[in-house]
Amino acid sequence: MNIAIIGLGVIGGSFALALKEAGYREVYGVDRDPETLQTALRRGMVLGAETEAARILPHADLTILALYPGAVLPFLQENAKHFRPGSLVTDATGVKTRLASGLAGILPADVDFVLGHPMAGREKRGIDFASAEVFRGANYILTPLPSNSEEHLRTLEALVRELGFAGVRRVSPQFHDEIIAFTSQLPHAMAVALINSDREGRDTGRFIGDSYRDLTRIAKINSALWSELFLENRENLLGAIDGFCRELEKIRSAIAAGDREALVRLFDTSRARREALEASRAQK
Amino acid sequence: MNIAIIGLGVIGGSFALALKEAGYREVYGVDRDPETLQTALRRGMVLGAETEAARILPHADLTILALYPGAVLPFLQENAKHFRPGSLVTDATGVKTRLASGLAGILPADVDFVLGHPMAGREKRGIDFASAEVFRGANYILTPLPSNSEEHLRTLEALVRELGFAGVRRVSPQFHDEIIAFTSQLPHAMAVALINSDREGRDTGRFIGDSYRDLTRIAKINSALWSELFLENRENLLGAIDGFCRELEKIRSAIAAGDREALVRLFDTSRARREALEASRAQK
Repeated sequence: MNIAIIGLGVIGGSFALALKEAGYREVYGVDRDPETLQTALRRGMVLGAETEAARILPHADLTILALYPGAVLPFLQENAKHFRPGSLVTDATGVKTRLASGLAGILPADVDFVLGHPMAGREKRGIDFASAEVFRGANYILTPLPSNSEEHLRTLEALVRELGFAGVRRVSPQFHDEIIAFTSQLPHAMAVALINSDREGRDTGRFIGDSYRDLTRIAKINSALWSELFLENRENLLGAIDGFCRELEKIRSAIAAGDREALVRLFDTSRARREALEASRAQK
Repeated sequence: MNIAIIGLGVIGGSFALALKEAGYREVYGVDRDPETLQTALRRGMVLGAETEAARILPHADLTILALYPGAVLPFLQENAKHFRPGSLVTDATGVKTRLASGLAGILPADVDFVLGHPMAGREKRGIDFASAEVFRGANYILTPLPSNSEEHLRTLEALVRELGFAGVRRVSPQFHDEIIAFTSQLPHAMAVALINSDREGRDTGRFIGDSYRDLTRIAKINSALWSELFLENRENLLGAIDGFCRELEKIRSAIAAGDREALVRLFDTSRARREALEASRAQK
């Protein structure tokens, strides 16, 4: 299988490394940055590298778009005529609804775009931080469109399992965006707000345990990427933030009222939910 | 040095294991649960074990109270006359101001209580989850009182470094409680509110990445302990929650207004702060 990766940042680069580890040889990379392409070639991550997608796309059986959310549709518009007829195209974008509705009519009917979301990433950017490791055991979400062929869906599911992903699920773009607002974007908003609410001059690092470390790890956020993701998924994220704030307000009220029993009830709920989460993952 | 540990739960048990690894032999445990004492003896965590503190305290050069916050003062009141004259007593309580002010006049003048807080713990309870590992590289905070002897403070600092703690700091009980509300209690409140705001029936575990896993780990909270800690530190914790909510509201407003530049600024701030946190720890 001839595979093209468009964008060799941390995610595209990780795809290249994971494909290599899984034994795929004919992997080609496209990036607008010539230095990135040099790195990819030098590290043997790709067999060929080009700044012009038009040189790679006509030969690709599978094209993986590892671009920023706002760059996907413009890329498709610009390169629609270069995709190989009968080929499979997928992406790695973290928000789906707008992309799914914007796709209509851009690609030829014989090019099949299957929307996908690898739930893995790193706080660092660029090919130097690419790693096949981050995919191992992670979740992968597909949001099929009516136009997608079942064969292509299965091909992609099988491939990402080969790359190390463990939980592969199909859901609608709408459900994807709703749950991702909760499981991914809300935690990032919380981490940013937590560390931003620290008072300066306290030498806070001397007074932290694992909890603060864990909760603020993702505060080292890629501003360009995540501001796009947040705004692309505005309504769902506002809903997730509001739901979270209602629960935090319950805790706040119980503290203010000195209501120990209410706190214990809230904690008992969270403990049971976290245990259920661990049990559901253990089954996987 | 003859050492008594009062309470062989997960923290007291971890002290016993860490002391053993550091070569301390004369370590004795007190717990109201005979089964816990049997476990401690069977695993060689202590040289002797008693349900009655009165049998252990008179021989102890150092007594470590690993009790729930609300149990510390009652224990001291009940056992004041049993402590060895000239001995050092410390604790592992996560909130200090109220304890510090409540201590006055309870212990004989020749028994020196140095308030301490190991910033390490586990989500699980009881001696079976004790581990010397959790102390390694963790922070330890001392909140000295005017009555404490410098010699005792140094003895305790040297000892906890031997047990694996890396960052040992002295601050006032008031500062401790203020910063702990932010670095420890607020993250726990956030984790509880996050998982409690999930909607049921979504099979959420299939759609999570590391961020949700990291942020909810501490939602598996010990309800009895943490409801005590929250209420003991009520004013500081309410302040920390409110400061956090103000920052979250900034993010929310920027999303609602579609203000990408505002989001980028907030993310740039959080990234810089997290990087500074990592740099300050790397220096340690």
